[in-house]
Amino acid sequence: MATKQYKVGIVGATGYTGVELMRLLSQHPFASVVVATSRSDAGVALADMFPSLRGHTDLCFTVPDVGALAQCDIVFFATPHNVSMKMMPELMQAGVRVVDLSADFRLRDVAVWEHWYNETHACPELLAEAVYGLPEIYRAGIEQAQLVACAGCYPTSVQLGFWPFLKQGVLQERGLIASAATGVSGAGRQAKINMLFAEANDSYSAYGASGHRHTPEIEQGLTAAAGKPMQVTFVPHLVPMIRGIQATLYGQLEDPSISNEQLQRIVEDFYSASPFVDVMPWGSHPQTRSVKGTNMCRIALHRPQGRDTLVVLSVIDNLAKGASGQAIQCMNLMLGLAEDAGLTAPALLP
Amino acid sequence: MATKQYKVGIVGATGYTGVELMRLLSQHPFASVVVATSRSDAGVALADMFPSLRGHTDLCFTVPDVGALAQCDIVFFATPHNVSMKMMPELMQAGVRVVDLSADFRLRDVAVWEHWYNETHACPELLAEAVYGLPEIYRAGIEQAQLVACAGCYPTSVQLGFWPFLKQGVLQERGLIASAATGVSGAGRQAKINMLFAEANDSYSAYGASGHRHTPEIEQGLTAAAGKPMQVTFVPHLVPMIRGIQATLYGQLEDPSISNEQLQRIVEDFYSASPFVDVMPWGSHPQTRSVKGTNMCRIALHRPQGRDTLVVLSVIDNLAKGASGQAIQCMNLMLGLAEDAGLTAPALLP
Amino acid sequence: MATKQYKVGIVGATGYTGVELMRLLSQHPFASVVVATSRSDAGVALADMFPSLRGHTDLCFTVPDVGALAQCDIVFFATPHNVSMKMMPELMQAGVRVVDLSADFRLRDVAVWEHWYNETHACPELLAEAVYGLPEIYRAGIEQAQLVACAGCYPTSVQLGFWPFLKQGVLQERGLIASAATGVSGAGRQAKINMLFAEANDSYSAYGASGHRHTPEIEQGLTAAAGKPMQVTFVPHLVPMIRGIQATLYGQLEDPSISNEQLQRIVEDFYSASPFVDVMPWGSHPQTRSVKGTNMCRIALHRPQGRDTLVVLSVIDNLAKGASGQAIQCMNLMLGLAEDAGLTAPALLP
Amino acid sequence: MATKQYKVGIVGATGYTGVELMRLLSQHPFASVVVATSRSDAGVALADMFPSLRGHTDLCFTVPDVGALAQCDIVFFATPHNVSMKMMPELMQAGVRVVDLSADFRLRDVAVWEHWYNETHACPELLAEAVYGLPEIYRAGIEQAQLVACAGCYPTSVQLGFWPFLKQGVLQERGLIASAATGVSGAGRQAKINMLFAEANDSYSAYGASGHRHTPEIEQGLTAAAGKPMQVTFVPHLVPMIRGIQATLYGQLEDPSISNEQLQRIVEDFYSASPFVDVMPWGSHPQTRSVKGTNMCRIALHRPQGRDTLVVLSVIDNLAKGASGQAIQCMNLMLGLAEDAGLTAPALLP
Repeated sequence: MATKQYKVGIVGATGYTGVELMRLLSQHPFASVVVATSRSDAGVALADMFPSLRGHTDLCFTVPDVGALAQCDIVFFATPHNVSMKMMPELMQAGVRVVDLSADFRLRDVAVWEHWYNETHACPELLAEAVYGLPEIYRAGIEQAQLVACAGCYPTSVQLGFWPFLKQGVLQERGLIASAATGVSGAGRQAKINMLFAEANDSYSAYGASGHRHTPEIEQGLTAAAGKPMQVTFVPHLVPMIRGIQATLYGQLEDPSISNEQLQRIVEDFYSASPFVDVMPWGSHPQTRSVKGTNMCRIALHRPQGRDTLVVLSVIDNLAKGASGQAIQCMNLMLGLAEDAGLTAPALLP
Repeated sequence: MATKQYKVGIVGATGYTGVELMRLLSQHPFASVVVATSRSDAGVALADMFPSLRGHTDLCFTVPDVGALAQCDIVFFATPHNVSMKMMPELMQAGVRVVDLSADFRLRDVAVWEHWYNETHACPELLAEAVYGLPEIYRAGIEQAQLVACAGCYPTSVQLGFWPFLKQGVLQERGLIASAATGVSGAGRQAKINMLFAEANDSYSAYGASGHRHTPEIEQGLTAAAGKPMQVTFVPHLVPMIRGIQATLYGQLEDPSISNEQLQRIVEDFYSASPFVDVMPWGSHPQTRSVKGTNMCRIALHRPQGRDTLVVLSVIDNLAKGASGQAIQCMNLMLGLAEDAGLTAPALLP
Repeated sequence: MATKQYKVGIVGATGYTGVELMRLLSQHPFASVVVATSRSDAGVALADMFPSLRGHTDLCFTVPDVGALAQCDIVFFATPHNVSMKMMPELMQAGVRVVDLSADFRLRDVAVWEHWYNETHACPELLAEAVYGLPEIYRAGIEQAQLVACAGCYPTSVQLGFWPFLKQGVLQERGLIASAATGVSGAGRQAKINMLFAEANDSYSAYGASGHRHTPEIEQGLTAAAGKPMQVTFVPHLVPMIRGIQATLYGQLEDPSISNEQLQRIVEDFYSASPFVDVMPWGSHPQTRSVKGTNMCRIALHRPQGRDTLVVLSVIDNLAKGASGQAIQCMNLMLGLAEDAGLTAPALLP
Repeated sequence: MATKQYKVGIVGATGYTGVELMRLLSQHPFASVVVATSRSDAGVALADMFPSLRGHTDLCFTVPDVGALAQCDIVFFATPHNVSMKMMPELMQAGVRVVDLSADFRLRDVAVWEHWYNETHACPELLAEAVYGLPEIYRAGIEQAQLVACAGCYPTSVQLGFWPFLKQGVLQERGLIASAATGVSGAGRQAKINMLFAEANDSYSAYGASGHRHTPEIEQGLTAAAGKPMQVTFVPHLVPMIRGIQATLYGQLEDPSISNEQLQRIVEDFYSASPFVDVMPWGSHPQTRSVKGTNMCRIALHRPQGRDTLVVLSVIDNLAKGASGQAIQCMNLMLGLAEDAGLTAPALLP
């Protein structure tokens, strides 16, 4: 290819979203990773930590350095929350364009952020500037943004499922339920006893049922969709699988006389120009494995017993459309590339 | 032990509920399996089909025969639906006491049964006589019953979670949601492509979301609990694990001023005499593995963000409390034994 | 791309090697699938059977037809054994070039084939013409071949591990052991009770230990490598994972004074021009997940306690380098393309 | 029961062998756990750490205290190596009988121990006194012992498989191979990144192939069996399952004219009085799940292609017969109880 190769930096590349960025970008026709940082593993070759990258990169982790990052066309933050907000002012001043996969700039209301993350936000002045990285909704804003705050994994699956219906006002304000489930990689590549194979395998449970940090992010989105304050009951569950999120969404229909065809058309029309949302035929049951390793969100509708409750099933890969894939989708928009550049491979199945 | 050994027969012992009955009864102090039938595998030693039973039984499968079964103190049907109803009249006449793990006698309304199971019921006249095998609710009836129709797996987890609150009238009639998930053994020991390891592992999805046969059974129970017709939106999901069901139940509180303590007390009081329901402290997250191989149901309550929605988490082992364990619990009551005889081993963990 | 798109046909595309060919070829820059056959599912859209292919192909399965296949530049057989040999003469006459993923043409000795596969070979006259599809060994032959008999999954992992050492004569003739393990997808997409999730998960066992069909294929290769008749004790095991094969190979060193460095150099030199064999540093432990979805074979050497036994660890993805990836590698050579065209994506990890 | 209840103490009860002792002893007719220690978790209720124990014990962890332990009839050490040897002299002096599940007293040669465990042994003077806890071999010694050093998990499976044949001298001295595989619980309940579900699932690999600490323990045993110094090549593998070990053992027959029947009789005769070794029919393939949660070892023989290599398949549950079950079996012998008291439940299957 004779085309320009954009230079990419990754801050915090030792986690699962980091190695997923490396995997996906290794296949990107127009972008190459030139910096990958890790404070704790500086000097280590990426391919030594992740043998799957042997033959795909010669990079070593380096200590994060604004000067080096400023040479990049795009910098991804694949860090836990509370890291990017500390480096962001300097990077913004240096004119770097950033896609932040962490939660630091997702919430517009600093008080809400500080309540749920239980600390003081380091640069609230940038919150207003950050564009929320959910391209199906904020495509135009992302194209122009200097700072994109990539949507979270659960919030992506829940918002994409509910948005068209709230936008159209077909669901009642009360009684929205998001019962969702994630694979274990959502907990990150950190040594925790409860994420050991011997603990997490062959079991299933809810967690964070009394209140999870993704709730305010979801409600911020649903409020924007509905044009009025919205609440949701969100209960996440842990599934013994590596990747994947399914959100099972329940809403009470405002007008029970609405037909299934009308409901199906609402969601199909809404995503007609979105290459990464696949609306399946009415009554389908999307499997998380059908999107494994891809940037797709698959959605299907049900109306149990033909009654007044709409059920929306929405599946994504938490590390791809729920994180690194979506981040690259945002990058593509920011750089004026095809939205799906480097993101076209089908899921690994079986 | 110098005590009487009751004689037990199992019809259809080649499936998962059959081998689970064998496993549990091998440890029962007062009962021994003397007949295990299978039309297709007559003559085969049980221990050849299930090497886990080597050293625990010398039985061979036999063709089902009413005469042989009539010698038993208790006969279990571990068959698919549509089998027991054909043999039942003859067994009833022979005076045999039966615990039927299949769905044939669970619904009291024959029309509803025929609608959901899509065939004519072979002996509707026995439906009224059958006692529903959910001992926490129908203990007295089970003790006297000749025919017990053991509650289904999902219905057990959902009813045990909702019942105390519907009984007390603290939940609104509209908006009951049961979002539930099961391990793969729930599909039985039958060769189906979609239950292959390579299909079911590392994935998660809903199934039967537009209407599942357990819905009418659940609604029959919730109606009895509330004393008025109740509907529920029930969506089951498939989890890549062998055993376990979690029901995540959502209900809107009738009176939002009710306290968490009051809600907790309702469920604790209701199950105070039930050895197999363990009400965990408010805000707990029961794991299915904590009940693996046991007859326990663990329940915990949440009220996300302190709002008006009550969340009840209810876990069981689908093959134990959801089938064979519950069947033995019913047998114990029918024979006047301790309710927990042979059912006291803790879960296998890890 | 302005380049020629070669037309590809797949016979028997409903199994796992079929859908893997579809997945990999959807990313191939110079080849497109134009025919996918299935007798039983003719008329069904591939994307309906495999939702992971939604958006990647509009093909429907068709009844196998020599005329349609003859229009293809390459035809893959992704069928069980005993199918391709029946269609092969006609296809050969039609001048079609074929890569056969089945076992029909792997063994050069028809008597051996008929012994292990327990039936009469339908066209023994083509056995001599078929080139064995293990490109690291038979690259030149494959480039010219009309009929390539793709190496089996276990035989690939075992031969690639042993070959350099037998070629160099550093291992004793007696005492070769291949203790290997596979993921469950190796059993194919067929409804078998013993491959159910509830049967295969959370367990491990050997199978076919008294004699497995891959033994003669392996011995044919090792004999070629050593230049004299070789025997091996081959015991396969089943692992509760979807994809992956590890062969753990044991050989007694002919001359115990050989150094580890010499052993390492033998294998590195042998594969220096092979893009899909990655020789890891001495003492590494390759994981099957490091090659998941890729055409790589990773090899590492050990010499426990510095004694006289060489241990070779060799991992592949059974569906990729063990089947469909290797088939495409063969196709690339046959068509004069870069050997790694369409096969460069890194493994999905985690 | 009017029988004596022996008092049991467990040192280090927060790990997997600790909770497995609790699970098994909760069903033991003649023993009750009265002390469970943990330095780090003193004060915590066992049932809070392991919800599977809710309703089965009211114990809280306590700081290890020789006085309290001295009140017990038996004390188990379920600690990592390097702990028990520090407390042992004091306990021995207090007259306590101890079953040590750790590696501290398994090797009779202190130099070998110090080489493999890389530290100074704290009380080498007790090594000679310790009886090796493999009851099938050392039953009489264990009955009299004050200190039993329970056999390791791999060593149990490998020794039980090889012993009868080495004892009878039917295998050649050279070329013994033990290719074994374990579930993840073998790594213990410790937060390690490589044991995370997202790392260990859907993958398979060897580990410790250049030298594993269980090798000297195995060779000490095989040397005792053969009555002359024996070496073995031992390569362990990690399987994505929670419990289970399979050892696949390869030996070259000394006299190829020995019949399969003779080989089968050797192993059947050897274990005729051992309730926990189940010799399956010739050519069987024992599955680890067939012993899950039990103290059984299942063994089966093969002779691939009828040649000169004997293959012994041996499966155990690493936490039961490989640790806590075997420890209780030793305790039963020490206390003069039936060898299988409390250990008779069949495996959880599926």
